[in-house]
Amino acid sequence: MSDNVYPAEQEYHDYIESSSTRWVIPPVMEELKSKAKEAGLWNLFLADFEDYGAGLSNLEYAPLSEIMGRSMIGSEAFNCSAPDTGNMEVLARYGTQAQKDEWLVPLLNGEIRSAFAMTEPAVASSDATNIQSTIRREGNEYVINGRKWWTSGAPDPRCKIMIFMGKTDVNASRHTQQSQILVPMDTPGVKLIRPLKVFGSDDAPHGHAEMLFENVRVPISNIIGGEGEGFAIAQGRLGPGRIHHCMRLIGCAQRAIELMCDRVENRVAFGKKLSEQGSIREDIAKSICEVEQARLLTLKAAERMDLVSYKEARDLIAMIKVVAPSMAQTVIDRAIQAHGAMGLSQDTFLPEAFAYARTVRLADGPDQVHMSSLGKQIIRRYAS
Amino acid sequence: MSDNVYPAEQEYHDYIESSSTRWVIPPVMEELKSKAKEAGLWNLFLADFEDYGAGLSNLEYAPLSEIMGRSMIGSEAFNCSAPDTGNMEVLARYGTQAQKDEWLVPLLNGEIRSAFAMTEPAVASSDATNIQSTIRREGNEYVINGRKWWTSGAPDPRCKIMIFMGKTDVNASRHTQQSQILVPMDTPGVKLIRPLKVFGSDDAPHGHAEMLFENVRVPISNIIGGEGEGFAIAQGRLGPGRIHHCMRLIGCAQRAIELMCDRVENRVAFGKKLSEQGSIREDIAKSICEVEQARLLTLKAAERMDLVSYKEARDLIAMIKVVAPSMAQTVIDRAIQAHGAMGLSQDTFLPEAFAYARTVRLADGPDQVHMSSLGKQIIRRYAS
Amino acid sequence: MSDNVYPAEQEYHDYIESSSTRWVIPPVMEELKSKAKEAGLWNLFLADFEDYGAGLSNLEYAPLSEIMGRSMIGSEAFNCSAPDTGNMEVLARYGTQAQKDEWLVPLLNGEIRSAFAMTEPAVASSDATNIQSTIRREGNEYVINGRKWWTSGAPDPRCKIMIFMGKTDVNASRHTQQSQILVPMDTPGVKLIRPLKVFGSDDAPHGHAEMLFENVRVPISNIIGGEGEGFAIAQGRLGPGRIHHCMRLIGCAQRAIELMCDRVENRVAFGKKLSEQGSIREDIAKSICEVEQARLLTLKAAERMDLVSYKEARDLIAMIKVVAPSMAQTVIDRAIQAHGAMGLSQDTFLPEAFAYARTVRLADGPDQVHMSSLGKQIIRRYAS
Amino acid sequence: MSDNVYPAEQEYHDYIESSSTRWVIPPVMEELKSKAKEAGLWNLFLADFEDYGAGLSNLEYAPLSEIMGRSMIGSEAFNCSAPDTGNMEVLARYGTQAQKDEWLVPLLNGEIRSAFAMTEPAVASSDATNIQSTIRREGNEYVINGRKWWTSGAPDPRCKIMIFMGKTDVNASRHTQQSQILVPMDTPGVKLIRPLKVFGSDDAPHGHAEMLFENVRVPISNIIGGEGEGFAIAQGRLGPGRIHHCMRLIGCAQRAIELMCDRVENRVAFGKKLSEQGSIREDIAKSICEVEQARLLTLKAAERMDLVSYKEARDLIAMIKVVAPSMAQTVIDRAIQAHGAMGLSQDTFLPEAFAYARTVRLADGPDQVHMSSLGKQIIRRYAS
Repeated sequence: MSDNVYPAEQEYHDYIESSSTRWVIPPVMEELKSKAKEAGLWNLFLADFEDYGAGLSNLEYAPLSEIMGRSMIGSEAFNCSAPDTGNMEVLARYGTQAQKDEWLVPLLNGEIRSAFAMTEPAVASSDATNIQSTIRREGNEYVINGRKWWTSGAPDPRCKIMIFMGKTDVNASRHTQQSQILVPMDTPGVKLIRPLKVFGSDDAPHGHAEMLFENVRVPISNIIGGEGEGFAIAQGRLGPGRIHHCMRLIGCAQRAIELMCDRVENRVAFGKKLSEQGSIREDIAKSICEVEQARLLTLKAAERMDLVSYKEARDLIAMIKVVAPSMAQTVIDRAIQAHGAMGLSQDTFLPEAFAYARTVRLADGPDQVHMSSLGKQIIRRYAS
Repeated sequence: MSDNVYPAEQEYHDYIESSSTRWVIPPVMEELKSKAKEAGLWNLFLADFEDYGAGLSNLEYAPLSEIMGRSMIGSEAFNCSAPDTGNMEVLARYGTQAQKDEWLVPLLNGEIRSAFAMTEPAVASSDATNIQSTIRREGNEYVINGRKWWTSGAPDPRCKIMIFMGKTDVNASRHTQQSQILVPMDTPGVKLIRPLKVFGSDDAPHGHAEMLFENVRVPISNIIGGEGEGFAIAQGRLGPGRIHHCMRLIGCAQRAIELMCDRVENRVAFGKKLSEQGSIREDIAKSICEVEQARLLTLKAAERMDLVSYKEARDLIAMIKVVAPSMAQTVIDRAIQAHGAMGLSQDTFLPEAFAYARTVRLADGPDQVHMSSLGKQIIRRYAS
Repeated sequence: MSDNVYPAEQEYHDYIESSSTRWVIPPVMEELKSKAKEAGLWNLFLADFEDYGAGLSNLEYAPLSEIMGRSMIGSEAFNCSAPDTGNMEVLARYGTQAQKDEWLVPLLNGEIRSAFAMTEPAVASSDATNIQSTIRREGNEYVINGRKWWTSGAPDPRCKIMIFMGKTDVNASRHTQQSQILVPMDTPGVKLIRPLKVFGSDDAPHGHAEMLFENVRVPISNIIGGEGEGFAIAQGRLGPGRIHHCMRLIGCAQRAIELMCDRVENRVAFGKKLSEQGSIREDIAKSICEVEQARLLTLKAAERMDLVSYKEARDLIAMIKVVAPSMAQTVIDRAIQAHGAMGLSQDTFLPEAFAYARTVRLADGPDQVHMSSLGKQIIRRYAS
Repeated sequence: MSDNVYPAEQEYHDYIESSSTRWVIPPVMEELKSKAKEAGLWNLFLADFEDYGAGLSNLEYAPLSEIMGRSMIGSEAFNCSAPDTGNMEVLARYGTQAQKDEWLVPLLNGEIRSAFAMTEPAVASSDATNIQSTIRREGNEYVINGRKWWTSGAPDPRCKIMIFMGKTDVNASRHTQQSQILVPMDTPGVKLIRPLKVFGSDDAPHGHAEMLFENVRVPISNIIGGEGEGFAIAQGRLGPGRIHHCMRLIGCAQRAIELMCDRVENRVAFGKKLSEQGSIREDIAKSICEVEQARLLTLKAAERMDLVSYKEARDLIAMIKVVAPSMAQTVIDRAIQAHGAMGLSQDTFLPEAFAYARTVRLADGPDQVHMSSLGKQIIRRYAS
């Protein structure tokens, strides 16, 4: 990270700024990827698939996820960035050999990227049964219709494949209506409507797309798992996905503290170093306590997943989802404050990290949904 | 606002998005300005200058500032936006007749815009005595050198004039070293280095510039007030400026609540309206309490300035500076959360408003500086 | 307050501590009352009843309520303490001449005290329709049965009369089942079960009682207003009551800040005054902002009640109920912290004030009930 | 705990309430102690002294400390309550054989109790070098003078011995001026001035005393360790002591959550169970997250102490001191709120637990001191 990733951040951003379009991949990213691959630091996720990845348990991978998360370009450099990680896991677990050959292999090689088209603008997608997009069988094809948004990574020029979630049977039971299906980006009828912004930033070249699917036809062999398995497959990716996001955010928050320490030690106002001011020290003390606690909680969730099961780790997964993004937002906000106006600008990684934390407080369900469900579980456990 | 301003927001943003450069002025803004001028809703600030403005007291203007602040394009539509307001006040109060004729009149007419070049990257500008830029007299000219940033409005193509703050005499007493001087944008040696971003957004077409001033020469008649008066002039603009910013932010927060109410009443998740969920109601209840309290406090500060003096209102001004931006950030954050991912996107005004609130927590001194000085005042008042 | 009340606090508490029973009235209280009466500072509440009181509006009385609230023995010294104030208002408004002669006159004279028996242990009394106590007519008498608790003031040896709330007709509509009736303390069947404690303190000699009413018989002339009017009468006392409580708590919080200022200016740790530490200054700055805002909000609620009606002030009343007690708890907690362990002891008024604030967060409905109802109102106002 | 301790709580408190003096020991406590001793659950602390205790590491003892801490009478039942634990550790580590025989043995047997006289009213005792009490050698005796307060446990009728901290040499270097010495309670010149209250509660029969020491004479053999070692000995007890306090508070908070769950599941307001209200669920969810995080952090601190040293665990010890008491106060406050007014009364353990948490936020240094020192360490670690 210190030798390669952090030093590349400025070049990465400058390349995008100076290009005529913002949807370009800075060459330095491919250089970083080559170095990582050579160093054997590649596909470190994929706990249960030693053939493909490093064969690390969730608990072993978690600290790596934190370290990579310290830079907004870190995870990708090691081919460990969302949504590819989740998509690769799904393909590894549920994909046919043909699906794996066509899509998993180039993803594992870092040759292409992918997207996950699930969230819809018209309904509360935190309740996955709300999904309205349709996947209708016609002969040897599925016909796909629907509007999606926050399809992250779709605007990336390297993005070649999407996993699309929709309903194959609206009359089935609530959790067997949904299916997941592979949709190549260049399939006719797939339209990228616009990039969505977060706090006014387009997050290029990754980005978040609003997509329209109009009579998109794919062969029936593109279905993942089988009709009606979409909800279960989606559930399966959430556990590891949340741990990854939380650990990355813990990395962001930890780095924010370190930047804050450096800043306040080297900045003078009203005749003394900022680091000598009591309220700054308290901010830093609170921040380090919060980061360390969130880290321990996330590691415990990872360990529980390894030792028992995702289902048994459900309450811990909910806890980290509630704790880590909100903690990261708070800590990064303090770091911004300690940096003065510079903290809001492109001269630090803080605004990007802040936006990331803020986003994850909404991604796969707002905090409130998870708190409510966690509270319900806890009440059931203890009430007589 | 309802008939003209809110409906124009989308067009305003779309125009910028679809232009080849982002530093263009959407025609709809000039239309809004014409309508406002015709309606006599123009230059509503300028409390003490009935010749130029509406002759409203701070207390009378404050609620108007809130109303205009409800839209990010509202204040400009009525020629009441920063930093022009502060610059016009300075020119009205300290300008020579020639300065007024050349710069104040077109500003009052909304024909040009202006900037205030004060903050510097190298020093903590919350302590204005830190300023390092120099204004050196040479014959009939002043020679200006320095680096400034967060010079808001400088990238606007209509921006023709800056008020520049620098030191004319580093050997004078701490508060008489600084002077303010008029620098036309097109003066040789003035360089706009780059636009600064806030959370990755360039805030076009207004923007925030990093500027370099290299041997910039202006006639000595450009000085405002006189050498050594820069600090006092800067202090004078802070009181009204803070009230304006705070009231605008209160407008933002109030509108955020209203949007949140509308959203939660019309959104269903897990089988019931969001508005029927207890925690959403609590969020809204807390928010309305916080907005109303901040409003009453700001109005009291405005009244105290009118009835007594800026100096006597100093503690109230510090209070609103500490309270209102932070309150607005919190309330808007809740509104974002209630909107789901849409709340982070360009489809609501919330991200812009959030960034504005976040910025003002740092503008003219971070919260901590004001809390420390306020705390000191209060201790002096009550300790025996 | 400075000449008489604050100096009497220590003597007041010492008298109780050194008595064999804690339910005794320190003579200094009766001396304070005499002085207040002589000075014409007596019965300052009672907005609409100039015959009885000072004839002050809610807005005029509110600041006096704050001043008296600065001492835990202040309100009583001026015959302005709860629950007597509410009980006197009810008698003034709804009482028969005989009821007024027998109970209102000695209460106004400060010769006796009174209690309000409403809250019940078995049900959520924040929903007044839950009340289970019964008031059953038998000939010329009402027979009263029920269990009450948090009947504040009942253990006071001077307490001679209670207003009791129960149901006269469980078959009536929800809000006409309840009645209020006068029950002299010495009526057979009235049993004081035990004093309740708050944080382990019995709050003697005022106290909070758990009471049992077993076949308590009073003449039918003791009914207040008439059968079925209990709910409406209870509603009527809530508005002014909340303003009084909130203003007293604002007085507590304001005094806590002043004590904190004094403490930190006169205490040295690690080689410098506490008052020179940034985090202490921030605590004080935040506190003064919060107190001032709560004060302005409460004054606005009082004014709205005067100018319009209780009903129209309903949202503001809910706001202050949510804001002021919680604010006071926070501010007093900070003052405790600044005092070190002394702040928790009987050597300052802070623990009493803290317990008062904490109690009011639950009195006539926990904060959550008011936030929920306020949120609902606000959503209704703004949602389209 | 379920079979013996919780069921004894009511009897314990009732015994004290019904006694003529409050400084009596309910017989049920001695019964609990006998049972615990028989069960071999006795003196579970004392990590490094297998001769005396259970020989458990800090990490092994910590969860037991949590379990015992769930009841305010739990720790004492297992002879694991403060300040005896700290005093026994000091005696085991630094005591002479004679000191051990006379005082450690009966303490280990639970036959007597002890106190630690360190904090002084006149100075900020968080800075131990401030101590003003004197221990002056005269022949074969030390003559002790000083005023102490918050000498917890001194009012307990079983308290026979104090460890007293004072200065033997004011001219020595800052950290070698202090000494610790054994002072039997019945030594002439030892005066218990008054019990201090916390939120108005005397915390009987344990209590917190203000003590006066006037020319108290003890033999020179009573010195612990040696002259000048007082500061170092005091430092040594802080690490384990903080872990114990934090784990007990985590036990309090955990039990508060469990009580809250039970309460809200069994209470109806406005037509539905409290447990079905979103904001209650969020309160419970937040609380369980906070408790679990504080637990993991404290366990990590305990482990670090075991594996490395107190010195190396210093930052973690500071973290738990900042985190756990404040967390417990917040969680218990929420539980109080969910219980309504009952939550403030003697009918739950919540007010006692709240007062305990609030007290520990000040005990051996207010949070601010620890945050400031922790912040300083962190800055030093990360700033370049």
